[in-house]
Amino acid sequence: MALIVQKFGGSSLASPEHIKRVARRVADTVEAGHSAAVVVSAMGDTTDNLIDLALKVSSTRPSREMDILLTTGEQISIALLSMALQEIGIDSVSFTGGQAGIVTEAVHGKARITAIDASRLKKQLDAGKVTVVAGFQGVTEEGDITTLGRGGSDTTAVALAAALQADLCEIYTDVEGVYSTDPRIVPNARKIQEISYDEMLELANLGAAVLHPRAVEYAKQYGVPLMVRSSFKPVPGTLVKEEAVMEKGLIVSGIAYDLNVAKVALVGVPNRKDNLQLIFRTLAEENINVDIIVQSIVQNEGSDISFTVSKDDLSHAMDLLTALQSRLGAQEIVSEEDLAKVSIVGAGMISNPGVAAQMFQVLSENGMLIKMVSTSEIKVSCVIDANDVQKAVGVLHTSFGLDAVETATVAR
Amino acid sequence: MALIVQKFGGSSLASPEHIKRVARRVADTVEAGHSAAVVVSAMGDTTDNLIDLALKVSSTRPSREMDILLTTGEQISIALLSMALQEIGIDSVSFTGGQAGIVTEAVHGKARITAIDASRLKKQLDAGKVTVVAGFQGVTEEGDITTLGRGGSDTTAVALAAALQADLCEIYTDVEGVYSTDPRIVPNARKIQEISYDEMLELANLGAAVLHPRAVEYAKQYGVPLMVRSSFKPVPGTLVKEEAVMEKGLIVSGIAYDLNVAKVALVGVPNRKDNLQLIFRTLAEENINVDIIVQSIVQNEGSDISFTVSKDDLSHAMDLLTALQSRLGAQEIVSEEDLAKVSIVGAGMISNPGVAAQMFQVLSENGMLIKMVSTSEIKVSCVIDANDVQKAVGVLHTSFGLDAVETATVAR
Repeated sequence: MALIVQKFGGSSLASPEHIKRVARRVADTVEAGHSAAVVVSAMGDTTDNLIDLALKVSSTRPSREMDILLTTGEQISIALLSMALQEIGIDSVSFTGGQAGIVTEAVHGKARITAIDASRLKKQLDAGKVTVVAGFQGVTEEGDITTLGRGGSDTTAVALAAALQADLCEIYTDVEGVYSTDPRIVPNARKIQEISYDEMLELANLGAAVLHPRAVEYAKQYGVPLMVRSSFKPVPGTLVKEEAVMEKGLIVSGIAYDLNVAKVALVGVPNRKDNLQLIFRTLAEENINVDIIVQSIVQNEGSDISFTVSKDDLSHAMDLLTALQSRLGAQEIVSEEDLAKVSIVGAGMISNPGVAAQMFQVLSENGMLIKMVSTSEIKVSCVIDANDVQKAVGVLHTSFGLDAVETATVAR
Repeated sequence: MALIVQKFGGSSLASPEHIKRVARRVADTVEAGHSAAVVVSAMGDTTDNLIDLALKVSSTRPSREMDILLTTGEQISIALLSMALQEIGIDSVSFTGGQAGIVTEAVHGKARITAIDASRLKKQLDAGKVTVVAGFQGVTEEGDITTLGRGGSDTTAVALAAALQADLCEIYTDVEGVYSTDPRIVPNARKIQEISYDEMLELANLGAAVLHPRAVEYAKQYGVPLMVRSSFKPVPGTLVKEEAVMEKGLIVSGIAYDLNVAKVALVGVPNRKDNLQLIFRTLAEENINVDIIVQSIVQNEGSDISFTVSKDDLSHAMDLLTALQSRLGAQEIVSEEDLAKVSIVGAGMISNPGVAAQMFQVLSENGMLIKMVSTSEIKVSCVIDANDVQKAVGVLHTSFGLDAVETATVAR
């Protein structure tokens, strides 16, 4: 008998019929002899509808009041799911974030959990009840209602699993698990059976979008095993844990890509010691996120400094840098759009030299120009033309032995 | 400078546009130099929509979960109204029932308030902020969410006014005040300027439906002056207080009627000492509310016992009594539908004998048969044929000098 935290997202709870199906899913766990603590998001479009209401009365949408407004979405879900469970004979009790003992910092819209007093939940679980907890929300020490920001329900689930010392945290979603790459562009993408937290973080940050990175970080920090699985099909999903078993012969676990990439290059920047920090502090102060940075020092003539930003931020970044140009002493500032980043991720890379070389070779053999490169212990990323992305992901997927025998089906 | 509690019901908050209008109303109060503590219901149809959702997942609708579900309605209202106030430059902060310190007994769906810790509200009011509080809800000592049942937002407003020692509690509604009778059947009904708690209670119980009786009882108990007024038109309403100033020459304040009346008569019931209590205990145990009771003892032949119930309860009551007939020894049990109760209400009656006689005379002169009579210190009620109600209310309204010079307009 295990204690399992189960998290269901908004698309799994889109209608009363969906909620009944989720109740049936939870009942299966209980009937198999396990204890279940369930975390839910708001139903389908509820959050968007509430935001629309707010837009009609407020141009500023003050964050404290927005939190009070938006948290009603999950509160509706917990009540309905708890009723649906009782309807099929499963004893259950629902809790808002505050009632579940989730305490956050006093920041609205994107609070972090500071403490969890899980004693009320534990008592109900020990009494054989299913606890249904509102995700995405908590209260401050003063009792003000807060939200955890985007992806917050995943974080709630992982944090509760840690506090309850649960055996497993299941994240139910509309895909069957984590794939070796996006099944929409590589039809024979492989469902990954096990993956490490670090690999998952690289894949999540790079656009796999199945799990929120903050939830994965939390899971890693507290050693909570995560299972990503389908809320519609009862098939095994992907297990995320510290020491994932590497699949036979696979050095690379997955291939991620990001189409939202633009490049800025500052040419001929004099090698003054404060120039680099001036550039990147200026961008950071305007909340412009910089990804890959490449600096090449050319003796005497100064450096060429290149970096990538998201497409949305490009014109803002160019404005800021153009204003700085004379102070930096840069000869030229140029930008490039229509780029993409393709990355190979795998914990096995550390002990396998030549992985990056294989990537470069595959891309160049297929006629693609690599414009920038960035590497970490478990990842190699290349910036290429956006037009080449689909082909690049496909050939890398084949080259690193990831092609599945069967074609992946993304269940809805 | 006064502290005013203002309560707005669901029809005043039916849309974002309505909410903005309410915000403007509250702003007028603040700009006149007063402090405002606002209590709100759920927007328009929200509560009905939430109940519909619950019906789709649960046949039993467990009350603890229903409370968690339904209280989201007022939580949405407080957030939106607080945002709308801030939008027009009024500093404001919203509170759920629990956050406002409203503690109730641990009963779901119809809890009574047991204590209010208004210190958080006081602090914000002292700091010059408008506090916006969710009506109809509270929390138990253990932190479970409860609702106060129908009309509960009025009760929240009065209870907060008492706890805050407010100068006035304004109940905003879709009529301009309390009328001398229903303006839909007597077009020249008079808007009452002042009325006592007791008179208001009689009128409320008799179908005037402007204020919930529990809220009036609460106001009487704590001496909170209530003002019933229109949320759509800025005109004076009706002031409800302990010692209402009687309008010149008026003994009767208002005329109420109730069309939901059925009569049961037990004929020839032997005069045994436990028969009466057997009848009414049986009905009470089945939650059948009995209104007027008339017993006439006929020596030797036993008593005739008549009483009124609501139409909905009639067949159930008849079934229960028929099953008891032989035990009671009653000769016959008969019922009558299509009846109505018309009542004159006025604190002035106590010191004015002959009011009841005048009522009987007016009804009989107009050809109406009085089937039952009940009197209290401030009320005389007659049961008559339902067909006669409109005429009865009209002639009584004229006879007791209530006709207004101008025709009442019920603003929407």
